Amino acid sequence: MVVSLEKNTTHQVVIIGGGFGGLYTAKALKTANVKVTLIDKRNFHLFQPLLYQVATGTLSPADISSPLRSVLRKSKNTQVLLGEVNDIDPKAQKVILGERTVSYDTLIIATGANHSYFGKDNWKDIAPGLKTVEDAIEMRRRIFSAFEAAEKETDAEKRRALLTFVIVGAGPTGVELAGAIAELAYKTLKEDFRNIDTSETKILLLQGGDRILPYIAPELSEVAAVSLQKLGVIIQTNTRVTNIENDIVTFKQGGEVKEVHSKTILWAAGVKASSMGKILAERTDVECDHAGRVIVEPDLTIRGYKNIFVVGDLGHFSHQNGKPLPGVAPVAKQQGEYVAKLIKRRLRGHTLPQFHYNDVGSLAMIGQNLAVVDLGFIKLQGFLAWVFWLVIHIYFLIEFDTKLVVVIQWAWNYITRNRRSRLITGREAFVEAKTVSKSSQYL
Amino acid sequence: MVVSLEKNTTHQVVIIGGGFGGLYTAKALKTANVKVTLIDKRNFHLFQPLLYQVATGTLSPADISSPLRSVLRKSKNTQVLLGEVNDIDPKAQKVILGERTVSYDTLIIATGANHSYFGKDNWKDIAPGLKTVEDAIEMRRRIFSAFEAAEKETDAEKRRALLTFVIVGAGPTGVELAGAIAELAYKTLKEDFRNIDTSETKILLLQGGDRILPYIAPELSEVAAVSLQKLGVIIQTNTRVTNIENDIVTFKQGGEVKEVHSKTILWAAGVKASSMGKILAERTDVECDHAGRVIVEPDLTIRGYKNIFVVGDLGHFSHQNGKPLPGVAPVAKQQGEYVAKLIKRRLRGHTLPQFHYNDVGSLAMIGQNLAVVDLGFIKLQGFLAWVFWLVIHIYFLIEFDTKLVVVIQWAWNYITRNRRSRLITGREAFVEAKTVSKSSQYL
Repeated sequence: MVVSLEKNTTHQVVIIGGGFGGLYTAKALKTANVKVTLIDKRNFHLFQPLLYQVATGTLSPADISSPLRSVLRKSKNTQVLLGEVNDIDPKAQKVILGERTVSYDTLIIATGANHSYFGKDNWKDIAPGLKTVEDAIEMRRRIFSAFEAAEKETDAEKRRALLTFVIVGAGPTGVELAGAIAELAYKTLKEDFRNIDTSETKILLLQGGDRILPYIAPELSEVAAVSLQKLGVIIQTNTRVTNIENDIVTFKQGGEVKEVHSKTILWAAGVKASSMGKILAERTDVECDHAGRVIVEPDLTIRGYKNIFVVGDLGHFSHQNGKPLPGVAPVAKQQGEYVAKLIKRRLRGHTLPQFHYNDVGSLAMIGQNLAVVDLGFIKLQGFLAWVFWLVIHIYFLIEFDTKLVVVIQWAWNYITRNRRSRLITGREAFVEAKTVSKSSQYL
Repeated sequence: MVVSLEKNTTHQVVIIGGGFGGLYTAKALKTANVKVTLIDKRNFHLFQPLLYQVATGTLSPADISSPLRSVLRKSKNTQVLLGEVNDIDPKAQKVILGERTVSYDTLIIATGANHSYFGKDNWKDIAPGLKTVEDAIEMRRRIFSAFEAAEKETDAEKRRALLTFVIVGAGPTGVELAGAIAELAYKTLKEDFRNIDTSETKILLLQGGDRILPYIAPELSEVAAVSLQKLGVIIQTNTRVTNIENDIVTFKQGGEVKEVHSKTILWAAGVKASSMGKILAERTDVECDHAGRVIVEPDLTIRGYKNIFVVGDLGHFSHQNGKPLPGVAPVAKQQGEYVAKLIKRRLRGHTLPQFHYNDVGSLAMIGQNLAVVDLGFIKLQGFLAWVFWLVIHIYFLIEFDTKLVVVIQWAWNYITRNRRSRLITGREAFVEAKTVSKSSQYL
């Protein structure tokens, strides 16, 4: 399967980003007569949909990560380059990484998206999002540190703020975080403390729209809401956060302005394209939408450049039903596979009809034995949905790496209701804990 | 099993440190009529002997950590306090944590030891040691970043420095690190890179004394040396590091001065007692040895204070055969259990004969199917020793937490020779990688 790599003559494919979009493109090009260079800032692919389980202490980062070199080991036509692309030069067909340049015949940009703080970027430090391993470790540190600080706090009001968790945004990530924190507080940690009763924990889930999980069918969204409420989560819909400051979240509900004191505010709202979108727009005059996502053509190229593709969360594709496709793994996967196929066709002088997303449905985990699954033609809830959710996620995981251990670990955690991975770590883990305690006058 | 906790009357035991010494003391006091407060800076017990497997990408931090609250959940007479003890007041029988104080009737200090840089503390940043989870993550980052940087390096000399690993100190940690890096370079990563041949990696193990693993029988030490050399490790005995600067390690061998260019220098030498030793010495006039370890009495108390015990690595106990006991887990475990027993006896008006260490032997893992085990009456090597090593470590691990998953993960890693946990992470993971590359002019 070794492809001959005559320098200067083999078609050079450069992929920026090793998420679902970039990695599926690279994998699908394994047997193509091209030379592939996959560039990523990190040395691993991250299975983002399970990041909330790292943030809440069930899994370790390595359980949901696959080293890129290991995934692409057998793709002898592919090399992985660890680095950050600062710029691209579409005329010269080069990407620029600091002082180094890499030439391409075809470029695939798959750098994804981040959370949007609706212009209030100073909220980022107060209310961390959940996109990277470091984000998850930081969330984990904050969640478990809050319980630790509450255990030591003697002032009732301060203790209440420490035991109040606010989650902004009720898409899958927000819902899954809320469910996991509820299980943590009301089940896992119940017997672990001596001075506090963790069942007094308050978990608020704030949602701008009129229902949680807006991408799922309304009846399932209702099922999810009822299940979360049974677990103890307080859901506030039609709610817009207007300020976050001094451990106080201010929000508007209808005409009313309310506030809640909380030491742990977690962000799971909004989408903002990664910076590569802006760079691309500057260099090619391609249009971007309000979230900075690149408007792509029906074949996922960008206007005026048949050799530049944008796949995954960074792209705005609305040629199917007028609405942009959601930023989920199946879209990125199918787009990556489409682009790889199109490249192979082109090398033989052919082409492909436009990209068509085969909607595989939406799903969200709520808690033990509880999930909702909307496949369009069938809707599942409760235990059956939970099993389905599990199978789908395991299937996705083992495509990259045989993560047998993740399966066993899950099973084990669900049986014992223990959360082994609840380490408070980080270079400044303890220093920061001290700062927190100083500011609230305990310890 | 609920012990009545009459305030002011129940005997108050305070334990500082949740390592082997402190945790075994707390566990053994579970049924005693005392109130126990275990204070630690971290919320988890760390199984330090396996930290090298985190540093080399086989295990995740959570695999070798147990949340202290979870371990002590059933000990209803015990509370865990997350915090840092800054001082102690033996006259008033109080420990001081910032603005808070905790009173004790009996105090157990088990804060362990760190690496000693022989007075050259500026070497710490250049050559990190291996005592905490953060240390291990930092080592992991450096090891895997070195291969990544070598892949991009075009200058042959710089590439050589990137593929040279120097490990200072050939006790169990140094030997295990050297063996694991050898397996990584010569087996696991062999097919992962396109521009470098990882089998060109040079691994130097520097040892001050005349043989590696000095605490083990000379014949086994020889077996270990031969096995490591077969794996590809270059062992340099009678070697003293005199300087580390600008990626150059300078060392003296006999009269000769040599140097080696290396981008990854790992420290596994020397012992320095934790700062609690100094504080104790200032407050009680107890004597410390050259490494700052507290000289303890035959019953593990300190001179003049029958209610202050020092257990584990922080203590210097030489009442058995004149030599201080080694800083290993079995010593800390037996000392913790002894102290708990003595406290229980004292509460009934009795006492115990002096502490006696029941030597369980020494062992070190070298590589796949390769270990050395010295039990005194029997010496094992090769596969049998490897199995023994595994069984002992699993036994220790499951005493705290049913780490079934660790066992399965090991087995899996050994079969597949894959290292899943090789994430380059940390808040500044990529920023630092860039700094490295700038200074050596690549990327």
